[in-house]
Amino acid sequence: MPTISHRGKEMPASPIRKLVPFAEAAKKRGTKVYHLNIGQPDIETPPSTLDAVRHFQFKILEYSHSAGNESYRRKLVKYYAANGIDISYDQIIITTGGSEAILFGLLGCLDAGDEVIIPEPFYANYNGFAVEAGVKVVPVTSYIESGFALPPLETFEKAITKKTKAIVICNPNNPTGYLYSREEWDILKQLALKYNLYLFSDEAYREFCYEGSHFSAMKLEGLDNNVVLMDTISKRYSACGGRIGAFITRNKELLDTAMKFAQARLSPPSFSQILGEAAIDLPEDYFDITREEYRRRRDLLVKRLNEMPGVYCPNPGGAFYAIARLPVPDADVFCQWLLESFSFKGETVMLAPASGFYGSPGLGLNEVRLAYVLNQEAIQAAMDCLQAALLVYPDKIEVKSKSELLTHY
Amino acid sequence: MPTISHRGKEMPASPIRKLVPFAEAAKKRGTKVYHLNIGQPDIETPPSTLDAVRHFQFKILEYSHSAGNESYRRKLVKYYAANGIDISYDQIIITTGGSEAILFGLLGCLDAGDEVIIPEPFYANYNGFAVEAGVKVVPVTSYIESGFALPPLETFEKAITKKTKAIVICNPNNPTGYLYSREEWDILKQLALKYNLYLFSDEAYREFCYEGSHFSAMKLEGLDNNVVLMDTISKRYSACGGRIGAFITRNKELLDTAMKFAQARLSPPSFSQILGEAAIDLPEDYFDITREEYRRRRDLLVKRLNEMPGVYCPNPGGAFYAIARLPVPDADVFCQWLLESFSFKGETVMLAPASGFYGSPGLGLNEVRLAYVLNQEAIQAAMDCLQAALLVYPDKIEVKSKSELLTHY
Repeated sequence: MPTISHRGKEMPASPIRKLVPFAEAAKKRGTKVYHLNIGQPDIETPPSTLDAVRHFQFKILEYSHSAGNESYRRKLVKYYAANGIDISYDQIIITTGGSEAILFGLLGCLDAGDEVIIPEPFYANYNGFAVEAGVKVVPVTSYIESGFALPPLETFEKAITKKTKAIVICNPNNPTGYLYSREEWDILKQLALKYNLYLFSDEAYREFCYEGSHFSAMKLEGLDNNVVLMDTISKRYSACGGRIGAFITRNKELLDTAMKFAQARLSPPSFSQILGEAAIDLPEDYFDITREEYRRRRDLLVKRLNEMPGVYCPNPGGAFYAIARLPVPDADVFCQWLLESFSFKGETVMLAPASGFYGSPGLGLNEVRLAYVLNQEAIQAAMDCLQAALLVYPDKIEVKSKSELLTHY
Repeated sequence: MPTISHRGKEMPASPIRKLVPFAEAAKKRGTKVYHLNIGQPDIETPPSTLDAVRHFQFKILEYSHSAGNESYRRKLVKYYAANGIDISYDQIIITTGGSEAILFGLLGCLDAGDEVIIPEPFYANYNGFAVEAGVKVVPVTSYIESGFALPPLETFEKAITKKTKAIVICNPNNPTGYLYSREEWDILKQLALKYNLYLFSDEAYREFCYEGSHFSAMKLEGLDNNVVLMDTISKRYSACGGRIGAFITRNKELLDTAMKFAQARLSPPSFSQILGEAAIDLPEDYFDITREEYRRRRDLLVKRLNEMPGVYCPNPGGAFYAIARLPVPDADVFCQWLLESFSFKGETVMLAPASGFYGSPGLGLNEVRLAYVLNQEAIQAAMDCLQAALLVYPDKIEVKSKSELLTHY
């Protein structure tokens, strides 16, 4: 029997999905499960964009241009201009989800054995794409005590080696919800220039900022050859299944290189390019409404969490995720227990253990990620479950006061 | 300025698309260009499958299962059963085009530095995916003189090293149109067992066989752990833009590994999974009609080519490609000349130089690939252009007799 590759064995299983069998078993027992574990929004995809797909006119579902339909890319220029990002249509390659944009970046900028620095906790699938590309992820730790702010410049400098080729920043951040400030971007700019690094900016949640405004890496001056914007319509328009993203850079040589990867896989999906193009025509207040909905959910979630004895959750500035510290020794065990051994009024809650979002072993063991992708009523019920669970959890750690929380563990 | 990766530089540009700027210039001059260079069929996508997409019911375009919708995979089991291929739905991972299935195979079965053997000429994008995966493609040459039959067992054995992990076969073949026989599959089976190799079977053109019937690698007995079927609906249903393929194997460990790659990129495109699922319900004669249309085109194309002095084209048994030898010293130069400096009645033809389909340098220099994806009238006109072009081409090689053709060059 032929063997599996080493990279196939190294490839991490999804930390978001590994508890799925326990959730399925709970549902089979009749327990209702609130899914706060995965970033699949319950917000409806804008009906006008779905209608645009329904009304497609072609009779042959042809390959599109490998960089995506020109009409779509030209409209995206307007979208980015409205966000203060000045690019031309031929600096955009439409990708199959943000996932493919990340892969193109790793393949085009780094060779196998090269290193990429990412503040941890980070989007777990970066690990997967790094394994695929043979690239080493070097984590620099951000801490719940500071709300997961950017680690200081010196921490990055200690992590940089001759093999470091890029820094990846997700802003606002998945899984922490942290919104990076202009000052933090200046630190990243300094690093990119001093060490000649690429700066990959994952801006999937650009519109979902609640404290302050979003600063795009594409606005950094003097970094045209360093910055790559990795984007996606998945969260922006609740269009996760469309698999439409974008790889954007002003670096001509890198763009030409990424086009070769794009040509090899022929084209991005055609139907959802229509959806993406139609989304540019949404009314200006579209994001205001969605953002307000997410803001209310965040406020509720964070309030409920911090009211629970022994729980601490910093207020996330953006995206639709929060990381909370729980009074438990091992959140992996606790999350499984929630599904396997607990219910409250016939219901329970599914959370993502945060350990899978850290690159350094042993970190985040008492943290969970919560995605506030359910409506407020569901969030209330989910928090009721969590609160009741923590009261009865056998392995709970006793925390005497709130101020003790940040030093206790 | 940060540098491009070595693999980014190594990544080949598409041999099918590299003449595109010359075609665009010809069109701007008012010359009509017949595109026989690319496998984009002009056959309409079955209207019922497009209607199925129009009538989708969901309000949220959610991620699908990472392996694709279960309902689609369950229906695919019926499709494969009708083709004599016995698999279960959980042995299927729906991929983003056949492209992704190939990439999953290379990543899951081979490590960087490992080798994969492919009979040349071969689908050029295998090269691209191999560069992405850091894998070395070792070509074994098939020859126009034998109609591009499988090279003998000894040729494979000479090419096998300790690093060889897999053989890739595209059946029927792109770019040669060759349909592999049951006997040739037995040779491949021997090799796979003796040297413990994976056998990747790309069956994109399964339904388009004109001489004899298709034999799927999935029917080889005793090779459950070796065979990976890489499939796609792109050509089968003229649904290239859907980006739906499949990675299929009975090797449980490999399947689990591929699922980790599938989970990292979350899910395949949702809309076109609906199309793929609807396609299983097409009437039984759907492929009969399409196959007959392609057969007529093939007959016409091959006849016209072989009637031209100095031209030789073996009769392809399947797919919708043919490779022809032309009486020119360099088909790359000739194909560019067709677009830049030639027209006949205001028209010209775009062909794909075959050199880009060979892994060995210097092979296929006087060969072109023709895709018979245009209707018969267009093929006639395109052949008129080629015939007229060869009469006036300044660098034409004189070939005295037809029998001389196969030894002349």
